[in-house]
Amino acid sequence: MNKASKKAAHKFQSIFSSGHLRRHHRKPPGQVPGTAIHTGVQRLDEVLMTVHDFDESHYDIIPIQKIEKSEPFLQNKSKTWIQIRGLHDIEKLKTVWNYFELHPLVQEDIVSTSQRPKVEHYPNAVYIVLRMIKQHEGDNGNYNVQTEQISIVLGDNYVLSFQESDEPIFDPILKRLELTTTRLRKFGPDYLAYALADNIVDHYFYALDVINENIEKIEEEILDDPREEQLQKIHALRRDLIFFRKSVWSLRDGINSLIRDDLPLISTEVKVFLRDLYDHIVQVVDSMETNREMVFGLYDMYMSGLSNRMNEVMKVLTIIATIFIPLTFIAGIYGMNFNSEVSPYNLPELNWYFGYPFSLGLMVLLTGGMIYYFKRKSWF
Amino acid sequence: MNKASKKAAHKFQSIFSSGHLRRHHRKPPGQVPGTAIHTGVQRLDEVLMTVHDFDESHYDIIPIQKIEKSEPFLQNKSKTWIQIRGLHDIEKLKTVWNYFELHPLVQEDIVSTSQRPKVEHYPNAVYIVLRMIKQHEGDNGNYNVQTEQISIVLGDNYVLSFQESDEPIFDPILKRLELTTTRLRKFGPDYLAYALADNIVDHYFYALDVINENIEKIEEEILDDPREEQLQKIHALRRDLIFFRKSVWSLRDGINSLIRDDLPLISTEVKVFLRDLYDHIVQVVDSMETNREMVFGLYDMYMSGLSNRMNEVMKVLTIIATIFIPLTFIAGIYGMNFNSEVSPYNLPELNWYFGYPFSLGLMVLLTGGMIYYFKRKSWF
Amino acid sequence: MNKASKKAAHKFQSIFSSGHLRRHHRKPPGQVPGTAIHTGVQRLDEVLMTVHDFDESHYDIIPIQKIEKSEPFLQNKSKTWIQIRGLHDIEKLKTVWNYFELHPLVQEDIVSTSQRPKVEHYPNAVYIVLRMIKQHEGDNGNYNVQTEQISIVLGDNYVLSFQESDEPIFDPILKRLELTTTRLRKFGPDYLAYALADNIVDHYFYALDVINENIEKIEEEILDDPREEQLQKIHALRRDLIFFRKSVWSLRDGINSLIRDDLPLISTEVKVFLRDLYDHIVQVVDSMETNREMVFGLYDMYMSGLSNRMNEVMKVLTIIATIFIPLTFIAGIYGMNFNSEVSPYNLPELNWYFGYPFSLGLMVLLTGGMIYYFKRKSWF
Amino acid sequence: MNKASKKAAHKFQSIFSSGHLRRHHRKPPGQVPGTAIHTGVQRLDEVLMTVHDFDESHYDIIPIQKIEKSEPFLQNKSKTWIQIRGLHDIEKLKTVWNYFELHPLVQEDIVSTSQRPKVEHYPNAVYIVLRMIKQHEGDNGNYNVQTEQISIVLGDNYVLSFQESDEPIFDPILKRLELTTTRLRKFGPDYLAYALADNIVDHYFYALDVINENIEKIEEEILDDPREEQLQKIHALRRDLIFFRKSVWSLRDGINSLIRDDLPLISTEVKVFLRDLYDHIVQVVDSMETNREMVFGLYDMYMSGLSNRMNEVMKVLTIIATIFIPLTFIAGIYGMNFNSEVSPYNLPELNWYFGYPFSLGLMVLLTGGMIYYFKRKSWF
Amino acid sequence: MNKASKKAAHKFQSIFSSGHLRRHHRKPPGQVPGTAIHTGVQRLDEVLMTVHDFDESHYDIIPIQKIEKSEPFLQNKSKTWIQIRGLHDIEKLKTVWNYFELHPLVQEDIVSTSQRPKVEHYPNAVYIVLRMIKQHEGDNGNYNVQTEQISIVLGDNYVLSFQESDEPIFDPILKRLELTTTRLRKFGPDYLAYALADNIVDHYFYALDVINENIEKIEEEILDDPREEQLQKIHALRRDLIFFRKSVWSLRDGINSLIRDDLPLISTEVKVFLRDLYDHIVQVVDSMETNREMVFGLYDMYMSGLSNRMNEVMKVLTIIATIFIPLTFIAGIYGMNFNSEVSPYNLPELNWYFGYPFSLGLMVLLTGGMIYYFKRKSWF
Ligand SMILES: [Mg+2]
Ligand SMILES: [Mg+2]
Ligand SMILES: [Mg+2]
Ligand SMILES: [Mg+2]
Ligand SMILES: [Mg+2]
Ligand SMILES: [Mg+2]
Ligand SMILES: [Mg+2]
Ligand SMILES: [Mg+2]
Ligand SMILES: [Mg+2]
Ligand SMILES: [Mg+2]
Ligand SMILES: [Mg+2]
Ligand SMILES: [Mg+2]
Ligand SMILES: [Mg+2]
Ligand SMILES: [Mg+2]
Ligand SMILES: [Mg+2]
Ligand SMILES: [Mg+2]
Ligand SMILES: [Mg+2]
Ligand SMILES: [Mg+2]
Ligand SMILES: [Mg+2]
Ligand SMILES: [Mg+2]
Ligand SMILES: [Mg+2]
Ligand SMILES: [Mg+2]
Ligand SMILES: [Mg+2]
Ligand SMILES: [Mg+2]
Ligand SMILES: [Mg+2]
Ligand SMILES: [Mg+2]
Ligand SMILES: [Mg+2]
Ligand SMILES: [Mg+2]
Ligand SMILES: [Mg+2]
Ligand SMILES: [Mg+2]
Ligand SMILES: [Mg+2]
Repeated sequence: MNKASKKAAHKFQSIFSSGHLRRHHRKPPGQVPGTAIHTGVQRLDEVLMTVHDFDESHYDIIPIQKIEKSEPFLQNKSKTWIQIRGLHDIEKLKTVWNYFELHPLVQEDIVSTSQRPKVEHYPNAVYIVLRMIKQHEGDNGNYNVQTEQISIVLGDNYVLSFQESDEPIFDPILKRLELTTTRLRKFGPDYLAYALADNIVDHYFYALDVINENIEKIEEEILDDPREEQLQKIHALRRDLIFFRKSVWSLRDGINSLIRDDLPLISTEVKVFLRDLYDHIVQVVDSMETNREMVFGLYDMYMSGLSNRMNEVMKVLTIIATIFIPLTFIAGIYGMNFNSEVSPYNLPELNWYFGYPFSLGLMVLLTGGMIYYFKRKSWF
Repeated sequence: MNKASKKAAHKFQSIFSSGHLRRHHRKPPGQVPGTAIHTGVQRLDEVLMTVHDFDESHYDIIPIQKIEKSEPFLQNKSKTWIQIRGLHDIEKLKTVWNYFELHPLVQEDIVSTSQRPKVEHYPNAVYIVLRMIKQHEGDNGNYNVQTEQISIVLGDNYVLSFQESDEPIFDPILKRLELTTTRLRKFGPDYLAYALADNIVDHYFYALDVINENIEKIEEEILDDPREEQLQKIHALRRDLIFFRKSVWSLRDGINSLIRDDLPLISTEVKVFLRDLYDHIVQVVDSMETNREMVFGLYDMYMSGLSNRMNEVMKVLTIIATIFIPLTFIAGIYGMNFNSEVSPYNLPELNWYFGYPFSLGLMVLLTGGMIYYFKRKSWF
Repeated sequence: MNKASKKAAHKFQSIFSSGHLRRHHRKPPGQVPGTAIHTGVQRLDEVLMTVHDFDESHYDIIPIQKIEKSEPFLQNKSKTWIQIRGLHDIEKLKTVWNYFELHPLVQEDIVSTSQRPKVEHYPNAVYIVLRMIKQHEGDNGNYNVQTEQISIVLGDNYVLSFQESDEPIFDPILKRLELTTTRLRKFGPDYLAYALADNIVDHYFYALDVINENIEKIEEEILDDPREEQLQKIHALRRDLIFFRKSVWSLRDGINSLIRDDLPLISTEVKVFLRDLYDHIVQVVDSMETNREMVFGLYDMYMSGLSNRMNEVMKVLTIIATIFIPLTFIAGIYGMNFNSEVSPYNLPELNWYFGYPFSLGLMVLLTGGMIYYFKRKSWF
Repeated sequence: MNKASKKAAHKFQSIFSSGHLRRHHRKPPGQVPGTAIHTGVQRLDEVLMTVHDFDESHYDIIPIQKIEKSEPFLQNKSKTWIQIRGLHDIEKLKTVWNYFELHPLVQEDIVSTSQRPKVEHYPNAVYIVLRMIKQHEGDNGNYNVQTEQISIVLGDNYVLSFQESDEPIFDPILKRLELTTTRLRKFGPDYLAYALADNIVDHYFYALDVINENIEKIEEEILDDPREEQLQKIHALRRDLIFFRKSVWSLRDGINSLIRDDLPLISTEVKVFLRDLYDHIVQVVDSMETNREMVFGLYDMYMSGLSNRMNEVMKVLTIIATIFIPLTFIAGIYGMNFNSEVSPYNLPELNWYFGYPFSLGLMVLLTGGMIYYFKRKSWF
Repeated sequence: MNKASKKAAHKFQSIFSSGHLRRHHRKPPGQVPGTAIHTGVQRLDEVLMTVHDFDESHYDIIPIQKIEKSEPFLQNKSKTWIQIRGLHDIEKLKTVWNYFELHPLVQEDIVSTSQRPKVEHYPNAVYIVLRMIKQHEGDNGNYNVQTEQISIVLGDNYVLSFQESDEPIFDPILKRLELTTTRLRKFGPDYLAYALADNIVDHYFYALDVINENIEKIEEEILDDPREEQLQKIHALRRDLIFFRKSVWSLRDGINSLIRDDLPLISTEVKVFLRDLYDHIVQVVDSMETNREMVFGLYDMYMSGLSNRMNEVMKVLTIIATIFIPLTFIAGIYGMNFNSEVSPYNLPELNWYFGYPFSLGLMVLLTGGMIYYFKRKSWF
């Protein structure tokens, strides 16, 4: 492989490359379970905390510096969502966690940002981990996919959300909150938690579309001309699908447990919506399985494309060699230096009147025979 | 690949190509759950609504413009089926949905036309999504397969059906309704809902037949001569089976839940028929799995067909080269210009009386030896 | 592929070829569920009905023309088996079905002769569908396998059996019925139904033996010399195993339901025998899975056999070409026409006293070197 | 393939070859269920019966001719194990079976010696089928594996064991019985039945070791030089693992049912030991799965070894041909006979003073260029 | 393969090589179940026993020679952990086992050091087997992985831990015990047992990292240049993953049983932590599955890399041969010795004034045509 194609190899990296495990942030073994250590990267200068307080009659947005400032909103009867962005300042986060008496293991998972998605039930709260997968259209029409761990804690009258960046992932929710007649304003905090999760799952369909498009593009390229480049693209797709599956798969059972189990924090009305969310996740998982099979198919196509080309190359060589080697042999015969003067048996053709035309005729005959043979084998 | 075969590639596209996801109609993420947005294509000028009112004594067909016109038919004791065709006019559909108090999530799914098949239970209704797969025989004997999402809502005394086009998929049911002694006229709306679903599943067997025929055709072609064209056909078959599976697979569990669960809307008598429907779906799913394995087998056959041909090509080259290269060498020997005059050791054969015949004899011997060798290796 | 090998391809068709779905008999979609239409082929001139009436003291065989003739045998206390052969005359069969009040769906399945095996429970009867797979030794030592759908209906005091042909599949049962001391005469109709099914499952082991033998034969042939013919045999085996699996697989769950469920028609004593039948079916299914893996192994052997041969072919070509091309080059050198008279540097070897022996020695040296090289690479 | 390698093929047969199904002993279909027909081979002259009677205070071994002779030992309070060797004499076995009132289906399975392993519960007994797999070290260091079906019947105060040969499989148990303080003497017959089964399962680990060693040996051979011989060894390993799995797999569920079900014949104390046996079986099954994957890996290594060698062969050919064909062309040019006397344009090089050195220089240059090219492609 | 690459093969052995089964320590079959025989290697001179006695107010470490010395610590109310290192001295271990009345089967498993991981419930204790997998960074930056079986016995007021070496695996726990405010000091022995297991599972993530890094390294190497060396690395990775999976897989169900079952020895508070441990194990198992698929992908990449290179080699050969063979033929034609003096038809070109330039022109034309052909096929 030359340098040019090597560069190409780097260009076709996984679309989910930002989601790879960063081993340098791995915690040392034997740590106290529940030790909160941020294993991601710092993306914000400081931890941002915003209180969203709302019911059917009002909706207020209050940025706060200290968690104690949320006290009045939690005391009143309206629903309260505290949105926390930035996971690097453990000290500040600890004030939040202690205020809401979150279990140490929940604290640990919130800042360990490569959890698989899951739903955990605690006596006073439900803890949900999801992976946001958000696609941005890049300069050259390529897609850039960003992933981030989102944690949602659902209590009896509040919802907490934790994320590393201030990526405006929840903007559609904020807009819907401003409308007075929405279910968000009417229903309890369980519906808000559902809406946040649903919003994240909605993005998965877009990631699927990017993968689908890539599969179709590579398919066309392979049909046109199978090159090493495509193999690398296939390998990257395979890695993407593996990462994607890890990010979604286990969420299915988590959401199912919210529907099946008899939890005081989840109302029957919201369960109908959770069933819809479950349905979406199953659809995503199904499509991933489907895409996985398509990618296996791409590999098979690539390999047989290679074999086909090899066959063609070999045919060209065989046709040329099979036609010209015998001809060269005949020319070699009449290039021999047997002394035709000492005997009438030594290359008498050399002295025939039509010796040269005779030899050419011999060659034309042989060539014709070969061409007929190849035609019959339909090698042309 | 030249242009001709490229065109061929386009000719062998999936038979289910019309069923691909149309990403341009994808809803933006973060929408209010239950927001009804039509994600398919408009196939009719306006939404058509037809009331079928029937019991053992009568059967009336009444096209209506406003859903309120169905009031008298719903009030009387006879069974009522309202058939709605056209899913693009959300406003008009909303009048129907509100009239029957359908859950917003049901409303959303009716017009999101790439749902996986499913059965959902609501307090006042059962919601069934199916995918119609209907085959038309095209001009040149090829098959053209059309797919469309069909939604069925079963209430206590009514059945609603929703479809995008006015494809006459339910014509056999209409004909059966005209006969007074059929179970359709005698049994409740649950039997009608079953009959509509059964009618759709019946078509799956025909789609299976098309796939089966394609597999057999490709099998024969590969045995005859494995060409790149077949590989593309195999790939298209693979894609078709994946799409087909997605369209049927989850229906199995849905129908099973109707049989197992204790639903007031489904009578025991109809459950026996639902068991038969379940049996049909299992048969379809089994055959799809079987076909999938046959398609894997086709690929293996194709690859070993290629290998076989490569072997043959190489044998031809090897035989020709192995026979003629040594002959050409001998001719080369006697084409050397050593001066036989300065020494009796310099190519004395050139001056022998039978020099030329001797050299030809040498060549014949060598050729004979080679041919014997190849015969023993049974390369001919 | 030439015509000869094409014919060969046809000779190695599946042993179960008669079991393929006949699509021309496919029922049109949208039919009334329970519409009995014969989808097989007519194999008898008319429908044959035979009453077998027996208890511990007697055994009578009475051919009847009308089903009403069986009335007295059904009324008395002895057990009654009505054997019906021929499924083409729906009118006549309807008299039987109506007499025993069989559910329309059972009627439909009896004459739809490509059902997957199953066991269905109705209030008044158990309906069992099985596929007979019977092997006949053909003229040339090859096996010919015949398959046919057998339906068994078990009522409280009767057993009905339906089959398309008059193939004497139940002869061993008839012989055992003639003996007074057998369990068949002593036990109830549930034991008879079991015995009929057990008799069919017994034949599966023979079909497995045929497949096993074929696998071993192909294995030896591939070890001897992998030819395209074997690939086709492997493909046929694969198809056979798929068909076989479809014919047996789902029977397992059916028989299991007879053992586990609390059915009034099945006595505890017979359940022990059904457990044995279940055990046999599991053994057949296990062996099929085993055979499937062996067939995958055959394919792998075939492919690496091809690769091995390719390697050998290429080695022959490479050895010949690598030895003779350099020799021909040396001969070419001394065949050049440089004028040795104008300069002592122009091919002085041509005028050496030992010029020709020198050139031959050069060639021998080169050949020796090459042979040493190939020996060291152990290519011989 | 020549004869030598064919012989080699026969040498590398499965180590479990003696376990293959013998179809000539297959029972005819339609037999009365429970018909005892010996489907194995006769290995002893007559059926040997030995009574082992023991409790904490005594242990007696009494060979008997008639089963009635065991009466006193069964009547007394001590535990009794009757060891029966030889399965060919159905008449004699029938006296035993009738004495202990074994179910006809148990009788049938005892002498049908290719049962899959299983555990069956009857009102008065538990019936256990196992496959002994015992390894003998052969002359040339190779292993020879013998397999045999062992049946164990556990009654309330007795254990029966049935085997075909007098292979001393139970010798370790006999030795342990001689010690007064062992659990065997203290515990009930359920512990003896467990000990017999455990003794058989112990041998599976040794068979696994043989397979493991074979895998490692073949791995090294393939790394050294992939030859057709190894492919046959891989195929034999695959067959061995399939046979081994069939012999062990279903035992797992059988033993589990003894632990889970509430059986009067199995005491709680013995269940702890059965759990250990279950654990061993799971370990064997796990290792088999592991070995299966290793064997797939061997095949992949073999195939890529072949490809690697092919690549090397092709490189040698290409290097030689690519260097010498152009050289031969140059030699051919200067071997042409254009008449340099009629024109200064006709091969003037032939008459140059340094014509020959010039042509040789041309050749050296070309060769140098080629070698540089191949070096850069790192083909050397 | 030459010696150099053979050595290389030995260098790329599995990173888990020390974990291979040592068959020489296999126990003979038929042993009394519960016979304790050490199947590992002796790593310490003598068995070391250390008592860790602690509660919220104190933490003492007391090395003891005789197990009876632990009596006072077991009698008092504080929690007691007895750490035992060295498994070769069965006699000494027996004093411990008897003192705590461990079941003989537990005794056996403690010293049989190739158990699969498991959790077993006994009336007075819970027995947990784990496999420590600990990585050391070697001299040359390579990783060295050490594995060892760890047994943990949890009683009502004590924990026993058994290991073969004095590898300081539990050092982080010892450090945490020194802090007064930790949960370790506050909670019961069940929490200590959990902490020991959690400490071991923590190390698995590091082993995963090593495997991940290897996969990425090999991926880059294959993209750069697929050599036989990589194939051996892939094979070693495959073996490592198989070993790793065996070491972790079954632990999942074991820990799950501790959470689900109602055990008096495990408090509800600790179950929350066990759920976290379970979550970690699932994450490890998921990653292993993911890695397994990546390794399959590596193999596919390697194989198609080989095919790609073969294609390139063949193209070079074909281009050279296809260009020069026809040229050599033309040179051969004009090297023929037909006597142009006896006839104007015999090679008149030889006497043309521009004969030689004409022949060279012919060759240039042919070469140009070939180059155009290859360009159009884009072989350059
Ligand atoms: Mg899959
Ligand atoms: Mg799949
Ligand atoms: Mg798959
Ligand atoms: Mg697959
Ligand atoms: Mg695949
Ligand atoms: Mg594959
Ligand atoms: Mg399958
Ligand atoms: Mg499959
Ligand atoms: Mg599959
Ligand atoms: Mg498979
Ligand atoms: Mg498969
Ligand atoms: Mg495959
Ligand atoms: Mg399988
Ligand atoms: Mg299998
Ligand atoms: Mg399989
Ligand atoms: Mg497989
Ligand atoms: Mg395979
Ligand atoms: Mg494969
Ligand atoms: Mg496997
Ligand atoms: Mg496995
Ligand atoms: Mg596997
Ligand atoms: Mg696998
Ligand atoms: Mg597998
Ligand atoms: Mg594989
Ligand atoms: Mg595979
Ligand atoms: Mg997997
Ligand atoms: Mg997987
Ligand atoms: Mg897989
Ligand atoms: Mg896998
Ligand atoms: Mg694969
Ligand atoms: Mg795979």
